[in-house]
Amino acid sequence: MFACALALAASAGSLALAAGQVADPLPSWNEGPRKAAILAFVRATTDPAGPDFVPPSDRIATFDQDGTLWVEKPVYTEVAFAASRVHDLAGGNPGLHVEEPFRTAIAGDEAAMGRMSYEQLKQIVLMAMTGLPVDQFRAEVARWIATSKNPVLNRPRTALAYAPMKEVLAYFRANGFRTYIVTGGGQDFVRTYSEQVYGIPPEQVVGTADAVNFGYDASGSPVLTLEPSLLLEDIFGGKPEGIHLVIGKRPQAAFGNSTGDRQMLEYARAGTGARLAMLVLHDDAVREFAYGPALGLPASEVGTFTQGLYDEAKAKGWHVISMKDDWRRVFAFEPPAR
Amino acid sequence: MFACALALAASAGSLALAAGQVADPLPSWNEGPRKAAILAFVRATTDPAGPDFVPPSDRIATFDQDGTLWVEKPVYTEVAFAASRVHDLAGGNPGLHVEEPFRTAIAGDEAAMGRMSYEQLKQIVLMAMTGLPVDQFRAEVARWIATSKNPVLNRPRTALAYAPMKEVLAYFRANGFRTYIVTGGGQDFVRTYSEQVYGIPPEQVVGTADAVNFGYDASGSPVLTLEPSLLLEDIFGGKPEGIHLVIGKRPQAAFGNSTGDRQMLEYARAGTGARLAMLVLHDDAVREFAYGPALGLPASEVGTFTQGLYDEAKAKGWHVISMKDDWRRVFAFEPPAR
Repeated sequence: MFACALALAASAGSLALAAGQVADPLPSWNEGPRKAAILAFVRATTDPAGPDFVPPSDRIATFDQDGTLWVEKPVYTEVAFAASRVHDLAGGNPGLHVEEPFRTAIAGDEAAMGRMSYEQLKQIVLMAMTGLPVDQFRAEVARWIATSKNPVLNRPRTALAYAPMKEVLAYFRANGFRTYIVTGGGQDFVRTYSEQVYGIPPEQVVGTADAVNFGYDASGSPVLTLEPSLLLEDIFGGKPEGIHLVIGKRPQAAFGNSTGDRQMLEYARAGTGARLAMLVLHDDAVREFAYGPALGLPASEVGTFTQGLYDEAKAKGWHVISMKDDWRRVFAFEPPAR
Repeated sequence: MFACALALAASAGSLALAAGQVADPLPSWNEGPRKAAILAFVRATTDPAGPDFVPPSDRIATFDQDGTLWVEKPVYTEVAFAASRVHDLAGGNPGLHVEEPFRTAIAGDEAAMGRMSYEQLKQIVLMAMTGLPVDQFRAEVARWIATSKNPVLNRPRTALAYAPMKEVLAYFRANGFRTYIVTGGGQDFVRTYSEQVYGIPPEQVVGTADAVNFGYDASGSPVLTLEPSLLLEDIFGGKPEGIHLVIGKRPQAAFGNSTGDRQMLEYARAGTGARLAMLVLHDDAVREFAYGPALGLPASEVGTFTQGLYDEAKAKGWHVISMKDDWRRVFAFEPPAR
């Protein structure tokens, strides 16, 4: 039995129970203040005898996606998909080859796209979505993401979710939390793979919502079609508004990595009781990408973590996760232990 | 043991198990095609060996609220609340006493409000909500609804949920379905009491969403404040769009009572496998209110069920629930069995 447990432990990382020991739910995290904060938060909110107990139905944790749960370099995965689709559409629309930002998109130059403005990225994404029935859009995304690779890391994009964050998701869920993605990216895009990659179902994905239109197809069957507008983005101005709309409850824990997550962390932290606000800092040039510009890291259009955000985090007791120091491994395909 | 089971049955309705019998999960329903259809649908979608099995994570049922789950006469409960609040606000704003629709709202004339246009009702509701922090709005709703009575039925409004529909909600949930409210009414209003009245938590309420604004209160704490606009209503044009936004999955079952539910029922029915679409027809002048105007019932501004909707239901195999014939009792405060 003991030998069997050892064998299980060897094959499955350190999650197998050996006689008398409590399993480490976060084996990809180095011991330190961040790991300790996560464990303490979950213990406090799930201890029925403690002052910070949260009833299971109220346990909500929200996670930004790009740069928090998975890689966002050289450019957002959603933009890479959209560019690939624009490339396909350009076969029948030669004018696209001339006009920016479509010319760069068609060329598949992700590094260049990673330096584009939000408005330009939005144009690429909308061009790719407009007029598609939702079901067809999801099928296209699923087909593309099944084989698409990150051109710098040369790995399948779905393998580039951060192992430490997947452990956090699983740990929270094992303790009765509902885990939500709250992304500035496209809700329908993320919903396509969120269950497979993160264990998060479509109804727990909050994102920028493309307007849809209810109509009928040629056979008279009802169909929802994507519109050329992100009207919901204007009102959906920030993440708290989206959280309010879709969830209607204030999360106790929120995770992000950029200035776009500031309001969400403020909102989650402002409630009573035990609260957890964490930001991922990309300071690991060796295993992932280093960018900020906080702490002198390279500037970035994508996932901008400013010095101001860093200072606010320190002032308000938000935890800043150092990928370099806090993560024993970044990706699941790395060996589990050093 | 047998005597004990009988005693339990007598005290708890017919849900207690007697030796060898299967409990009736819908005791407030008369035997007939509608009750049979509900039972058959749930059996088909939950039978792992059957062709119409739906994995639990995909089991979604959506319910309109007003006129489907609870009373909507003489006027929508939300409007009655808003009118009560406008009445309170009018103390400090005498001009409201002169202008319609506020004059009628302040007078508390629900019968007159029940004949108003949608635009007039919207004005009353927005006047009541504007500028309130969401938490304060919910507290006001909770306070009001704890004591407010329907002026015609002279019962607490929260007691006027339909017992047969509450049994349907419980039965669906007991069989792994997630039950959602999808209402043309206000999402924040309904969220205040949906768990208490229907067992439906805030994150499972889809409704017309008042725009909210993220800001800071006087002490610098983050706060969401209600705006004087239903911007989300325009894009949220119909119920399928709202379902897509909040749930991201097509329901297998949908329940409504008026023309506003048509698209939702079409959308739910258009999927493959076992599907259930049901409309509640208010044909019971004795125990509730009779209105249509389908089948020669009195015309109604509120919860309009046209002859056209009835004909579409018959043509498409949607079930029309006759309150008069299908419901053994309408409200929980009536005796359980005739």
